[in-house]
Amino acid sequence: MTYCVGFLVEGGLAMIADTRTNAGVDNVSTYRKLHRFDLGGGGFVTLATAGNLSVTQATLNLLREGIENADTGQVETLDEAPSLFRAARLVGQAVRKVRGDMAPSLEADSVSSDVALLLGGRVGDGPLGLYLVYSAGNFIECGPETPYLQIGETKYGKPVLDRAVTFRSPLWDVVKIGLVSFDSTLRSNLAVGLPLDLMVAPRTPAAPIVSRRIEADDLYFRDLVERWSSALKATLTAIPEPPYGE
Amino acid sequence: MTYCVGFLVEGGLAMIADTRTNAGVDNVSTYRKLHRFDLGGGGFVTLATAGNLSVTQATLNLLREGIENADTGQVETLDEAPSLFRAARLVGQAVRKVRGDMAPSLEADSVSSDVALLLGGRVGDGPLGLYLVYSAGNFIECGPETPYLQIGETKYGKPVLDRAVTFRSPLWDVVKIGLVSFDSTLRSNLAVGLPLDLMVAPRTPAAPIVSRRIEADDLYFRDLVERWSSALKATLTAIPEPPYGE
Repeated sequence: MTYCVGFLVEGGLAMIADTRTNAGVDNVSTYRKLHRFDLGGGGFVTLATAGNLSVTQATLNLLREGIENADTGQVETLDEAPSLFRAARLVGQAVRKVRGDMAPSLEADSVSSDVALLLGGRVGDGPLGLYLVYSAGNFIECGPETPYLQIGETKYGKPVLDRAVTFRSPLWDVVKIGLVSFDSTLRSNLAVGLPLDLMVAPRTPAAPIVSRRIEADDLYFRDLVERWSSALKATLTAIPEPPYGE
Repeated sequence: MTYCVGFLVEGGLAMIADTRTNAGVDNVSTYRKLHRFDLGGGGFVTLATAGNLSVTQATLNLLREGIENADTGQVETLDEAPSLFRAARLVGQAVRKVRGDMAPSLEADSVSSDVALLLGGRVGDGPLGLYLVYSAGNFIECGPETPYLQIGETKYGKPVLDRAVTFRSPLWDVVKIGLVSFDSTLRSNLAVGLPLDLMVAPRTPAAPIVSRRIEADDLYFRDLVERWSSALKATLTAIPEPPYGE
């Protein structure tokens, strides 16, 4: 299992992914699920992947090698995409091609070939964008009404996002809330695990893009988890007892 | 969809269920999912139901009418169960019988006959107990290490339980945390809805059992939701910004 979340708010784009993969409960490993492609002209695409690891790895490799465009005969790679929409379409094509090759034999062994990817980035000095690409290669774009997208084990960490994230939330506040959402998920599901990978791209194209791995001994993350946990317990204590027994 | 949770802590037993049922998103209704059976000698069994409504309703009716015991030829009803374990076994038998009748035609229409039930209660002046009965009629018993069981849409509301509920938590504190868990679920999933039904049975057999419906305009629940939401926002604000951008 996996948990990845992407935010597209007024201040910019942030993506967080865990690194745990498992086949059953006795085959657990650490794999990077947040992958950055640098484009020309300062542009970039970051992909977060969930689902069958062989399918997502093959998809990433195909995006680097290129996919032949059936109309033009040209081989297209992700780093040459002329727009973020075209990048998302190319990722969808790559997913369809890989699943077309692998799904029949996987299904014969009752293994799911389902995947989901988040694609965030910017082409040239165009606007930042965030997409969710499904197994069938179709995709949706993140909008300001719900300024986040999740893939993988999404439910445990959703309530805090629904309560606290709006399009106007400052970019680093959203990263903070995202880390709380990860902590809730890590506690309730063993198949999501540290370290986490973080990517933060402010809206201004000139601002540097932050890439960071957050390990289990990260002081900030440990402090955040501790503060959140104590505050929740204090809040629960402060709420009066239900009057229903009287 | 449905969300029900049961707690078995040092101070007693508490069960909470929502009342929303839906077939698709355009056929939404309110049905009671928390059902109490009064046994002789002050004992009681409370069942919370999730899954296919026709299967759970038929199961409840069969438990009232009685099921023939294949070994003895006797008809057994829930209110005559000699122990809570036997009550859970009888519920499992009823689920199997109803699904045996209904599942083939439901499956032919691609409708799931899956259900899950929580069974809490006490027989005579015996100990309080809490069980989770699965679709196959098998069941598990709640223990002190994880003093709660959930059915239905369980994930949104699980993190707060994992953080705050222990076997030593006071009974009414646990009800409070349960209501917060419901609020998180209600916000993130439209298929879980108010009103809620609550049952609280203190450990002492002489103490009265509380049964209460919590409507959308319930002052205590509205205050709890408001306090929780404000405290979470205040906590998020109080956590320092991530240092990763520096």
